[in-house]
Amino acid sequence: MTAAVPVPKHWYNAAADLPELYEPYIDPATGRELPADSLTELFAGELVEQELDRDTRLRPIPEEVQARYALWRPTPLLRATALEKAIGTRCKIFYKYEGISPIGSHKANSGVAQAYYSRRDGRKRVFSETGAGQWGSAISMGSSFVGLDAEVFMVGSSYDAKPSRRILMETFGAKVHRSPSPLTEVGRVARKPDENDPGSLGLAIGEAVEAARADREAAYALGSAFNFVCLHQTVIGQELRAQLDAAGLRPDALISCIGGGSSYAGLVFPFLDQVERPGRKLDLVAVESNAVPKVTKGKFAYDHGDSAKLTPLIKMYTLGHEFAAPGIHSGGLRYHGLSGQVSKALHLGLGRAVAYSQLEIFRAATLFARTEGLIPAPEAAHSIAATIELAREHRDEERVLVFCLTGHGFFDLSAYQRYNQGQMDDSDSPSAAIEASLGQLPAVGNPGTSGASEDPFNAWQRWHFGAPRPSASGAVGTDLRGYRVVSERLVREASQGGAGDLLVARDAVITPAAESEARDLGRKLVRGGDR
Amino acid sequence: MTAAVPVPKHWYNAAADLPELYEPYIDPATGRELPADSLTELFAGELVEQELDRDTRLRPIPEEVQARYALWRPTPLLRATALEKAIGTRCKIFYKYEGISPIGSHKANSGVAQAYYSRRDGRKRVFSETGAGQWGSAISMGSSFVGLDAEVFMVGSSYDAKPSRRILMETFGAKVHRSPSPLTEVGRVARKPDENDPGSLGLAIGEAVEAARADREAAYALGSAFNFVCLHQTVIGQELRAQLDAAGLRPDALISCIGGGSSYAGLVFPFLDQVERPGRKLDLVAVESNAVPKVTKGKFAYDHGDSAKLTPLIKMYTLGHEFAAPGIHSGGLRYHGLSGQVSKALHLGLGRAVAYSQLEIFRAATLFARTEGLIPAPEAAHSIAATIELAREHRDEERVLVFCLTGHGFFDLSAYQRYNQGQMDDSDSPSAAIEASLGQLPAVGNPGTSGASEDPFNAWQRWHFGAPRPSASGAVGTDLRGYRVVSERLVREASQGGAGDLLVARDAVITPAAESEARDLGRKLVRGGDR
Repeated sequence: MTAAVPVPKHWYNAAADLPELYEPYIDPATGRELPADSLTELFAGELVEQELDRDTRLRPIPEEVQARYALWRPTPLLRATALEKAIGTRCKIFYKYEGISPIGSHKANSGVAQAYYSRRDGRKRVFSETGAGQWGSAISMGSSFVGLDAEVFMVGSSYDAKPSRRILMETFGAKVHRSPSPLTEVGRVARKPDENDPGSLGLAIGEAVEAARADREAAYALGSAFNFVCLHQTVIGQELRAQLDAAGLRPDALISCIGGGSSYAGLVFPFLDQVERPGRKLDLVAVESNAVPKVTKGKFAYDHGDSAKLTPLIKMYTLGHEFAAPGIHSGGLRYHGLSGQVSKALHLGLGRAVAYSQLEIFRAATLFARTEGLIPAPEAAHSIAATIELAREHRDEERVLVFCLTGHGFFDLSAYQRYNQGQMDDSDSPSAAIEASLGQLPAVGNPGTSGASEDPFNAWQRWHFGAPRPSASGAVGTDLRGYRVVSERLVREASQGGAGDLLVARDAVITPAAESEARDLGRKLVRGGDR
Repeated sequence: MTAAVPVPKHWYNAAADLPELYEPYIDPATGRELPADSLTELFAGELVEQELDRDTRLRPIPEEVQARYALWRPTPLLRATALEKAIGTRCKIFYKYEGISPIGSHKANSGVAQAYYSRRDGRKRVFSETGAGQWGSAISMGSSFVGLDAEVFMVGSSYDAKPSRRILMETFGAKVHRSPSPLTEVGRVARKPDENDPGSLGLAIGEAVEAARADREAAYALGSAFNFVCLHQTVIGQELRAQLDAAGLRPDALISCIGGGSSYAGLVFPFLDQVERPGRKLDLVAVESNAVPKVTKGKFAYDHGDSAKLTPLIKMYTLGHEFAAPGIHSGGLRYHGLSGQVSKALHLGLGRAVAYSQLEIFRAATLFARTEGLIPAPEAAHSIAATIELAREHRDEERVLVFCLTGHGFFDLSAYQRYNQGQMDDSDSPSAAIEASLGQLPAVGNPGTSGASEDPFNAWQRWHFGAPRPSASGAVGTDLRGYRVVSERLVREASQGGAGDLLVARDAVITPAAESEARDLGRKLVRGGDR
């Protein structure tokens, strides 16, 4: 597949062609659609526009980002002839290899874009989180390119066990914090019982969001799930389309794994117009883990994107934001939810989900390595397992199957060792755990749900600080000292009840939106007093 | 640089254009030119032909090997625009990135070829050695592709400290032995004082050669230095030439690091005809480490290719086969010698060598990572340091500088950590150590040298078994029980002195050549008796 195709100059916004892909985010504090300004607090204006855009089909990729993409794009489309032979199939198996990016995965496609926009927006720092480290590497590299300081909260257990990814980020100049850290309130609360708490992605997100909110010069960045991340990844599918066209091929199936969903979105969204077509339907296959089967066993409902309840409510396939995923080696798939757009597409029947267990995917990965040479990341091995199954099922048909090899597994070799030595298990999630977690879906946004009905702001507060919303000492309207986080809403409410300075606790977190609300209302936030 | 160039269909044999590149190997046991049949004992016939070929300019790449090359070739040629900007130079810096091969380095180019020829030659197993693991990964992958069993002797210190590369090899199905191992005589002797001996590349080579010699169905494979390895790597330079042509560019300098010399040969040999040309001479730069400065501080002389003295004598730049290189992080450059052909080219003035210290190359690597995203292998970082120096020196000229980025540094992050934390030192080799080692050059092949003048067979024997050649009990000619290794020469000599069975020790290593010599002479080798 040596045909040279150009690197796309635009990202493809599927919501412009299929407006039903778009479901509004809901603000847990109001139960209403999230206002754009609560996103600009965290993200550069251009990213917020991308997030909410339902009109622009093609959004231009800035030249500076194009120049960076040229370092690894177009990524190769390769045929796995030896794998076909080993399976004994007439299907033609192709893979789009995103692992050649400098950090070894497709995450780079969004990392350089988010860093670029954040810097151009005048931010000096970016806070983000990372599980196993793939996304953390991407945002660290992107930040290094544009001269942005990067601080990454890395899930404690990964920080301890996988130093390589941490060193990679540090080599790009990023600061890496073991999460939970003493730097944020979220972290301090979690560390109270145990300083060496292993952390979780939910906690790390909470820390990064809190840190970004507390720093006017900072942005927050994230590696998947959001619409703009899916948008950035559409370079994958656009290139693939051109590569297949150049080779005179028409795909019969497109396959990628789903963690937050961005690689899948990037691969298949540019092909959504081809699903229904004369002859054989285009088969879009989203592959998940039986340890985290959000589509095959979860619900399509509004839920928090993180266990810290700091994100807005997103309509998506979810296992519940408090779902405790088993410790599988595919860290990138250990996410309870899924991009709203990807979820909606699957809900509309544009694509289907399948799930595999850990031993199956390592068996597939090993066969792939021995026939094609590349050691796949465990996440990508899910796509290989699904592709092999399809190729066996249709062994006598010349179907064109294309999967996205999202990244290499050079940082996952300890997992391969466990598999090689027969020490691995399947780690499927038991149904009871899934049902229990689904019972915790928020009532807001989910009419008729039997889930939790607590005021979502209280729920957020409680998670955050371990106590229900405190009653303010003194009349609401002048005294906010009882609150550990002073939000825009609190300032607005307090201002309705009086005039003069608003007293806040010495160590309260004042969100930038609260500060700006106070300014607009002509009120002054004064730190001091006890709590 | 998206211009699609074809993957070469031939390897380029520079010795056909420049016969003076060829210097015969000398058999240490006879002092004469090595007979081809002592090579076929270890290597497939086609590889031996390639090794000794001084006539064929272009040797066809077998279709099966071409199909494998297509998995990662053509490798990208990329421009390091951000690095140029950071340096403040008008030079155009390009890098040819070989790290996209499945195992992450250029070694794959020879790994698939050697495995293919060994299998086609009817061998069932291949024995090889590896230091840090790059070559071991390549031969393991190549063997997996063709259904050849691979056994790799891995230097003990790497085996203990760097499990990732070992797991990679095992995932390809290879057996990896910690060297020194109890499986060979060489290993057993070395383990006697200490079972956990850290080993050395010289020892590992000795084990692999011994194991291959003792097994009629096995071949030996090696990752650099030999002519056929350099030949296989010429796909790099041929592609580069086509890529530069397609972009309308003429290189002013080509830069690569030298361990055994194969990446450098592969890069520059296809350009040797361009060195002398109207206008500016093409600058060929071989970059070595100040810890192992074989060209800048060594001698051009006949020497053993390994400390075990199992290879023939090679005319090359060397620091002496017993040179103890400091423990730098660039394992691939910790080799006392250099490919005969590369040495001869440098000796003829076709190219020049420069040396850098460890801190300089990590400084260069970090600048490269932060501007271009890729984390280079420390070996390749030598080329980056040299390129940066050239680009600074000629900052006001639009020179085209191209270096070979032989591999990524994902398995070298612990070294980056040491650098990031300020715990690294330069590890240059002191002149006294170099001089002492050069004093040990063999007399054979080096008339007038003041070096060691011991019978090279005795020297080999002594290294191998820690004692001078034992006097055989009984008349030479009937009794070889005093010898731990029974060679072709011993059989021939013994047969001149008598008739009947030749007695050998119960645990003697009988080389296949000895066995065949005995058969030809109508003598029988009988194991038994004491020793």
